[in-house]
Amino acid sequence: MLRVPDGDHLMRHVCDGCGIIHYQNPKLVTGCILEWQSQVLLCRRAIEPRYGLWTLPAGFMENNETTVRAAFRETSEEANAEVEDAHLFALFNLPHISQVYIMFRGRLKDGRMEAGLETLEVRLFEESDIPWQRLAFPVVQESLSLYFADPRRGSFEVHMGDVIRRPDSSIQINRY
Amino acid sequence: MLRVPDGDHLMRHVCDGCGIIHYQNPKLVTGCILEWQSQVLLCRRAIEPRYGLWTLPAGFMENNETTVRAAFRETSEEANAEVEDAHLFALFNLPHISQVYIMFRGRLKDGRMEAGLETLEVRLFEESDIPWQRLAFPVVQESLSLYFADPRRGSFEVHMGDVIRRPDSSIQINRY
Repeated sequence: MLRVPDGDHLMRHVCDGCGIIHYQNPKLVTGCILEWQSQVLLCRRAIEPRYGLWTLPAGFMENNETTVRAAFRETSEEANAEVEDAHLFALFNLPHISQVYIMFRGRLKDGRMEAGLETLEVRLFEESDIPWQRLAFPVVQESLSLYFADPRRGSFEVHMGDVIRRPDSSIQINRY
Repeated sequence: MLRVPDGDHLMRHVCDGCGIIHYQNPKLVTGCILEWQSQVLLCRRAIEPRYGLWTLPAGFMENNETTVRAAFRETSEEANAEVEDAHLFALFNLPHISQVYIMFRGRLKDGRMEAGLETLEVRLFEESDIPWQRLAFPVVQESLSLYFADPRRGSFEVHMGDVIRRPDSSIQINRY
């Protein structure tokens, strides 16, 4: 049943039987931008949504993980790749789907990679070869745009941005 | 019922009746360090846990918020205060309780504040007056330590750290 519990101010899912409150909170997605000799690792999705499009290794963080460990696990699962010299890269808010992305940047260890179960293929791309029209999600496009702009700006500070869905379903990016 | 759904690799709560999977993921806590004329705003807790101890305004992020908006809302609810010139300050992993803290730093607007429902009192503290022995949580102590060290280091980069509970229940902080 949906109701506002005592002392709360928002509607929650409350079990009629036992009274337990099932809070629903934003979910964390963690991922990595991996560089190898000026190229960046992308995975082509073997699952919906966006089957066949290119993405960065990323996925839902699990309980009892740290954000870094979660990002490394996703990179291992999707690309059988390891990360060296990882740094916090960006935080993105996706309020329309109640997600927060935490992205790291690092070096691909030994240049080794191999498609995981949820991946059709893994490839390295030079900036000029990035398939901008075939990226799976706006947050992937924004991550790569910021990543390639950083060395030109000479700055590697942590980025923050909002990925907003407008009423007409188009996407707006706000950078802070 | 606890079981591993098809295509998954972790135990999940699955409803015997309808088959719905209730995923449990880490929760985001957002908060603010607010400065006013070299002083920092702290709230004394009017709720458990840690009733009567001092904390930074912070709380669970809700669906459809951005991290910044969530931090501003908590600051408003707990201290009736507004934030100006906010910057991302730190990300802390608390894997033993599956929480991730996102802290911002900013200026207290007009120096105005007043205790909210979950707060006994709101006060401004100079660094030398911080009640280090009466802070509510290790993550509050770590946030304030880093905050006061930043101007001495001449650096305001975004911090990242793990707050780990050791087997003997003592707390260990790993800074990246």
